[in-house]
Amino acid sequence: MPIYRAPVEDFRFLFNEVLELDKQGDLPGFADLSPDLVDDILTNAGKFCEEVLQPINHSGDEEGCHFENGAVRTPKGFKDAYKAYSEAGWGGLTAPVEHGGAGLPHVIGLAVLEMSLAANQSLTMYPMLTNGAYDALIATAPDWMKEHIVPKLISGEWAGTMCLTEAGCGTDLRLMKTKAVEQPDGTYRMNGTKIFISGGDQDLTDNIIHMVIAKIPDENGVIHDDLSTVSFFMVPKVLVGEDGTVGARNQVNTGGIEHKMGIKAQATCVLNFDEAVAWRLGPKLEPAKPGEKRSSSAGMAGMFGIMNAARVAVGVQGIALGDVAYQNGYAYARERRVGRALNGAQEPDKPADLEIIHPDVKKMLLQARSFVEGARALASWTGLQQSIAHSVRPEAETAALLADLMTPILKAYCTDMGFEAANLGMQCYGGHGYIRDNGVEQFVRDARINMVYEGANGVQAMDLVGRKLGRKGGAAPMALFGLLTGWIAENEKDDAMKLFVVGVKRGVENLQSATLWLAANGPKNPNDAGAGATEYLRMMGIVMLAYLWGRMAKASLGKDDPLHKDKLMCARFWMERMVPECPMLLERIQAGSATIMEMQ
Amino acid sequence: MPIYRAPVEDFRFLFNEVLELDKQGDLPGFADLSPDLVDDILTNAGKFCEEVLQPINHSGDEEGCHFENGAVRTPKGFKDAYKAYSEAGWGGLTAPVEHGGAGLPHVIGLAVLEMSLAANQSLTMYPMLTNGAYDALIATAPDWMKEHIVPKLISGEWAGTMCLTEAGCGTDLRLMKTKAVEQPDGTYRMNGTKIFISGGDQDLTDNIIHMVIAKIPDENGVIHDDLSTVSFFMVPKVLVGEDGTVGARNQVNTGGIEHKMGIKAQATCVLNFDEAVAWRLGPKLEPAKPGEKRSSSAGMAGMFGIMNAARVAVGVQGIALGDVAYQNGYAYARERRVGRALNGAQEPDKPADLEIIHPDVKKMLLQARSFVEGARALASWTGLQQSIAHSVRPEAETAALLADLMTPILKAYCTDMGFEAANLGMQCYGGHGYIRDNGVEQFVRDARINMVYEGANGVQAMDLVGRKLGRKGGAAPMALFGLLTGWIAENEKDDAMKLFVVGVKRGVENLQSATLWLAANGPKNPNDAGAGATEYLRMMGIVMLAYLWGRMAKASLGKDDPLHKDKLMCARFWMERMVPECPMLLERIQAGSATIMEMQ
Repeated sequence: MPIYRAPVEDFRFLFNEVLELDKQGDLPGFADLSPDLVDDILTNAGKFCEEVLQPINHSGDEEGCHFENGAVRTPKGFKDAYKAYSEAGWGGLTAPVEHGGAGLPHVIGLAVLEMSLAANQSLTMYPMLTNGAYDALIATAPDWMKEHIVPKLISGEWAGTMCLTEAGCGTDLRLMKTKAVEQPDGTYRMNGTKIFISGGDQDLTDNIIHMVIAKIPDENGVIHDDLSTVSFFMVPKVLVGEDGTVGARNQVNTGGIEHKMGIKAQATCVLNFDEAVAWRLGPKLEPAKPGEKRSSSAGMAGMFGIMNAARVAVGVQGIALGDVAYQNGYAYARERRVGRALNGAQEPDKPADLEIIHPDVKKMLLQARSFVEGARALASWTGLQQSIAHSVRPEAETAALLADLMTPILKAYCTDMGFEAANLGMQCYGGHGYIRDNGVEQFVRDARINMVYEGANGVQAMDLVGRKLGRKGGAAPMALFGLLTGWIAENEKDDAMKLFVVGVKRGVENLQSATLWLAANGPKNPNDAGAGATEYLRMMGIVMLAYLWGRMAKASLGKDDPLHKDKLMCARFWMERMVPECPMLLERIQAGSATIMEMQ
Repeated sequence: MPIYRAPVEDFRFLFNEVLELDKQGDLPGFADLSPDLVDDILTNAGKFCEEVLQPINHSGDEEGCHFENGAVRTPKGFKDAYKAYSEAGWGGLTAPVEHGGAGLPHVIGLAVLEMSLAANQSLTMYPMLTNGAYDALIATAPDWMKEHIVPKLISGEWAGTMCLTEAGCGTDLRLMKTKAVEQPDGTYRMNGTKIFISGGDQDLTDNIIHMVIAKIPDENGVIHDDLSTVSFFMVPKVLVGEDGTVGARNQVNTGGIEHKMGIKAQATCVLNFDEAVAWRLGPKLEPAKPGEKRSSSAGMAGMFGIMNAARVAVGVQGIALGDVAYQNGYAYARERRVGRALNGAQEPDKPADLEIIHPDVKKMLLQARSFVEGARALASWTGLQQSIAHSVRPEAETAALLADLMTPILKAYCTDMGFEAANLGMQCYGGHGYIRDNGVEQFVRDARINMVYEGANGVQAMDLVGRKLGRKGGAAPMALFGLLTGWIAENEKDDAMKLFVVGVKRGVENLQSATLWLAANGPKNPNDAGAGATEYLRMMGIVMLAYLWGRMAKASLGKDDPLHKDKLMCARFWMERMVPECPMLLERIQAGSATIMEMQ
């Protein structure tokens, strides 16, 4: 059976020695955040993940969710584990104190999220989506919802979902058919079908608050094939009055659950809205001015908040699945005996040496590990940027740009690489990895979803290259290059840092060349930008991990214990073996789109 | 539901325009092989795969195999399809005429195999292993087996298996525990348990002929932890007398079947040998001479023949799964509408453009396709080398070296890339690809086994670098470089070929540098060779496909129909986007093993 050991020690290293959270007391939520408190949270969360969430991960996959009489039943043990999760307060860790949350910064929330996901992605997705729902309500909802709904979401008594996709539209939400019509009392009646709704129904909570986007017919009753009339709605499974009284079942019905490759214990639902009562959130859609076309929709903004948080969270899923698969591959390779070391038997008295003595096996494991630990640093660093963005520091605006720029990197790079890492962990098992009872193949199946949902990874690349790079005159990439070249300048006189500075510098130079190439060619031929977008995103991921490995190396130099020596080993591995991908990616980008566009 | 269209047209191009099979009449089995006959075989096989094998692929995955009362039952429809397969003679296509086969060359057999595997890998594996069994018997068995068993295997009336793996040993067969003790009548009694036996039991045939390796106790009754006493045995499920009479059940019992990530319709069995009657094949184990250690085993040789053929076949599985996933991704992207073309709407009257107009989608599909068609050319070319190796041509020896060198390339490179291609096909579906009903995720799960069984891909890399490169003074790589530089010299004056020659040349130069580096450093530090073996294998795969794309480009120049224009597009894609991996792989190889070996 698979194992999982929460990486508490690694987070401690990151928080104390690299990001130095104790020096961030001026940031919102950091004032009372002593290293002891952080340690307590990490230790308890880690223990909870290892002891409560992980033991029902494999059984949850085997059993899957049930759909009977229009309702979902989660696998054995999920109800109790979810209750324990909520009671321990893990669901409200980063929620504002005034609504009943713990008010902790994102960097802590992401750490706990990663450990929960590694232990049990299917289960953790239920509260993870709730988190998105209460954040959106806090940002957009009227007071009565903040009073009567938000605290129940934060406590985990109720759960939340996000409802975007329909059968005919996923990435292209313009094609959405679900509509909502205003009633004299100011509420709406919603009709339509949403698909792929994670946690769309379950037996863990008494109520589910669906955050839904739908179209409002325009002043002529027409539904447009664009985003102009899209609005953002709160649609509860069980109706809630403005005074908080819980009423009858709303007409939101579960049409079925999907049978999927993985995350089988997570209920992916078809939801039918049949004259469902819906509350519009955020600013009201104004009629188009005569002669003008409505071009943007107020409604998407509400959903974007959830979507961005969800994209970061999905990136963390990639890291989490990569880690747990790595841990199992490592454990297996340290137990299984096969062959002899290439330079002579290591344990001649045993019938064979351990699998892990083989350089090819070590390399697979190091590739997974250096990605996981580097990406963990990137997610934590991004969480810190989010807090800086909300502070009064002079670099707040830069931090906001960087955090925004990292959203597609975390989502796409970390899920692509997380899937690779999961496969490397599985590969260490040989044929035994393919057997379901051994549990490691589940990580590969579960990790595969992360590359497709919440915006397929190619869509993330288009978001990065088509939107984020150019916005505000290229402010985000300029902020990034400022950060990276600043770090290089700061460290290049240090001989002990030479190897790492050279690696980061090489990555940065390639990334700069790629950015210039895209800036020069994209406007002339947008297909050139599209053809290189995935490679560009991957390169930025590699360079960011090089930068963070550089910082981790610096924090580890001269320390002779296993943790710090391993950090230096991983940092060297990243510079020697992963950074060399950058020139190849640059060459692919510069190949442009001519050959590709020939395909019919 | 997934589709499959047999690539008959592509094989026709390869056979007629690239490999020019009509000019190979001097090779064994080619004399009567007219283009019309080849066309008939391909067309009929393709039709059979599309109409009989493919329709039960998805249902077979859903239902899986059953294990009841000690016996395996295959999914609905498998028995009939297998019967039709055998009756059509597909199982004996390359078997010698004198034993009842069709005596066709490997290059034809591999084409039919690929189409069958793409249509239904689980089902095709049953006759595929039978093929290995009858080849081994023809090579090693006494006459009565050739008379009474081989024809029944060739006709498909009976099936065969290969039994190597045990719970404690897969790659490292030295640790094998199954033993066989000689009886006064010359037969043996076998005891032990073999695992992961594909087709170890089924309900398709009346008898199963197991090809088993086991240890014979030495003259002192001792079983050694090495290969010295390993011998090769024929162990039937139902006993067969030397006169061909079928007798009682042998004591080979199925202990259970594995529940796996994929190939669920293929029964992966635990087989218990309890005093099973076994016939030793090949030369008898001689007692060690006084003072000398027995260092090699006669028995492994018999199994190596099956293993090498199986490795090539598994490589073809990688190509097949990559192709069928590509075909489905392509079909989906040509139906699904999402977004607008980056340089302006293509179909402004439709609510959105087709998914395939996006360069990122085209690129994913081209990557899968250029691999699949390039690898198909490599497999066919290798099949041709096998025939040349068995001919009286002066280049027979070179051809044997090249075919042998390509075995790990086909097995590992084509299954790694086949898995990537399957994932690319699935990625085109977005979230819909993750849903089991849509069928494309099955290809990813099925393709995953190909990287682990028949020698995990890391083991293939060690075989390539540790054995095949250096054997006979480096004769194999020298033959390869002779071939490649010869082709470059032949074509570099041709302006129309410039792009392709430059690509092949760049690949060859990197491969030469890598070979020299390994030759210089491997002997001093074998871990340096081990640390770069996987990269070296991958590079050789890329270079071989570049060579074959160069040849396909040459055959396509100046032809203006879609097939040949697409070939030129894929060839350019390979040179522009895949060959650039070579310098990166070289850099990784030259990074050596120092950092990697630090891992504890």
